[in-house]
Amino acid sequence: MPKTIVGIMGPGDGATAIEMETAYALGQQIAHQGWVVLTGGRNVGVMDAASRGAKSAGGLTIGILPTANASQQSSAIDIAILSDLGNARNNLNVLSSHVVVACGLGVGTTSEIALAIKAHRPVVMLQSSANSYRFFQRLTSQTIGWATTVDQAVEQIRARLYEPS
Amino acid sequence: MPKTIVGIMGPGDGATAIEMETAYALGQQIAHQGWVVLTGGRNVGVMDAASRGAKSAGGLTIGILPTANASQQSSAIDIAILSDLGNARNNLNVLSSHVVVACGLGVGTTSEIALAIKAHRPVVMLQSSANSYRFFQRLTSQTIGWATTVDQAVEQIRARLYEPS
Amino acid sequence: MPKTIVGIMGPGDGATAIEMETAYALGQQIAHQGWVVLTGGRNVGVMDAASRGAKSAGGLTIGILPTANASQQSSAIDIAILSDLGNARNNLNVLSSHVVVACGLGVGTTSEIALAIKAHRPVVMLQSSANSYRFFQRLTSQTIGWATTVDQAVEQIRARLYEPS
Amino acid sequence: MPKTIVGIMGPGDGATAIEMETAYALGQQIAHQGWVVLTGGRNVGVMDAASRGAKSAGGLTIGILPTANASQQSSAIDIAILSDLGNARNNLNVLSSHVVVACGLGVGTTSEIALAIKAHRPVVMLQSSANSYRFFQRLTSQTIGWATTVDQAVEQIRARLYEPS
Repeated sequence: MPKTIVGIMGPGDGATAIEMETAYALGQQIAHQGWVVLTGGRNVGVMDAASRGAKSAGGLTIGILPTANASQQSSAIDIAILSDLGNARNNLNVLSSHVVVACGLGVGTTSEIALAIKAHRPVVMLQSSANSYRFFQRLTSQTIGWATTVDQAVEQIRARLYEPS
Repeated sequence: MPKTIVGIMGPGDGATAIEMETAYALGQQIAHQGWVVLTGGRNVGVMDAASRGAKSAGGLTIGILPTANASQQSSAIDIAILSDLGNARNNLNVLSSHVVVACGLGVGTTSEIALAIKAHRPVVMLQSSANSYRFFQRLTSQTIGWATTVDQAVEQIRARLYEPS
Repeated sequence: MPKTIVGIMGPGDGATAIEMETAYALGQQIAHQGWVVLTGGRNVGVMDAASRGAKSAGGLTIGILPTANASQQSSAIDIAILSDLGNARNNLNVLSSHVVVACGLGVGTTSEIALAIKAHRPVVMLQSSANSYRFFQRLTSQTIGWATTVDQAVEQIRARLYEPS
Repeated sequence: MPKTIVGIMGPGDGATAIEMETAYALGQQIAHQGWVVLTGGRNVGVMDAASRGAKSAGGLTIGILPTANASQQSSAIDIAILSDLGNARNNLNVLSSHVVVACGLGVGTTSEIALAIKAHRPVVMLQSSANSYRFFQRLTSQTIGWATTVDQAVEQIRARLYEPS
């Protein structure tokens, strides 16, 4: 049975403390639901925090790394996909996720939201600025999710996992 | 001697008539400068128009196609790179361009501007909305070029080709 | 804790009945060791048989698919990485495997053994012809494993997982 | 009009003097025919020699580099595609070539011949050992070209460019 995979995207080196706390709590909640957490796999920022949160709740974590080796790999990754694709791996992150959650917004995250919309993957933006949310919503007829709390994000994810597509 | 490559990105199937006219004129002007035009290579929208413009002025055109075969290839492409990477090829489009010009803005273009910023490639936005321009400029300390006419875009490209990086 | 991942590569549509039986038994044995099985993820040939074998023994299975959707996905895949990279995904298959086992030999498998050697991943050839084995061994100073039974293959894998690299 | 592209593949750092001389002469001859030379783009081995040969005869050269920057780029490359795909770029090398010529045989070359066969691209092996030629020919019903001189290789390429596929 294919497992349900939720991608958590967000800033790496530039992540704020609040973004990392939020990502940690989101990773925990997603693991509590029995869903797998997928990230970009590195040991920094939102991807690291989300993976650590998921592991703290006994979840399974996948990281799709941009490199050919594990030197930058988060210690909270169970399954490392070593892509050696650089940022082209961003497209794999979103294609492999049943729902993509953006937790904060860096340039990498921006590319991932856009690629997710392009590939018709559902997107939820958590603690995003209204400006950023409107920017993306204007690009697509797909309804982008909007959440201010982790609980709301989980509800938005659940709605997208079980909606007719 | 490596040739100077200018990437022209923009909407495919959803391109407006004005975006396509602008892309055609931009392709022409870039060819007049002796620069090579690089696009996503398909036979629609901004990529097709820019390539046709460049060919009308005797320029050389490269297309990095998302597919493994040439069935969707613009007839104005000289050098077809058949990537079979889907939208992961967007990263190759920007990495291979000395300057990236966005002519209009679809979700694919959004991913390309973000990936260009991530890879420290200079970006010029042509006939962009002020909102979109501000969205991207807030993501980076790099100065994104802004142009309302094709002539201004060419000046912005030239400035970025010859500035110290 | 990163899980130990063993990649099982081999013919897809052209796999023989013996190759598929062997791949099924190998998937079972690898799951019994507590290792994760990674394949190319499609619902044919060695990749399907190895994944089904691993599931029959309660193992975890990863498939890195060449496509952007799950239409060709083996029903025995737990974690589907939808790469949309076509056969460029072969490089991810081997980079993400701690040991690569070739079970039979198609053109795809040939590319994977070569890419594994290039990336310094250990390789074990199971039920290979002596000619094919010698072909690959001549290309590298790395000692390629050789096994005629599934039990021997498991011993060869174990030796490579725990040898100093 | 799409240009005719001939890919020249072969060893990089491990190339012999004879392989490099042959690649240089082959690049020259291909340029004389008006065909474009495509290689892996780095400044070593067969890819460098073939590109230099093509430039010596006034040809156009494309290099699909494994990296995101030009630091390892052959000085004889006109059009650099900076892929940042590592060895996954080998698939792009062969997909983008109308005919693939192997000049010598390293592990990278082996992956490229296999990927070319997989993608139904014509392959010519130049100065290959009989063993290596037979290894590949056994993998496919496609007739792989065999040449011992550069002139023969050019004839083999021409036959494949103009044969019904």
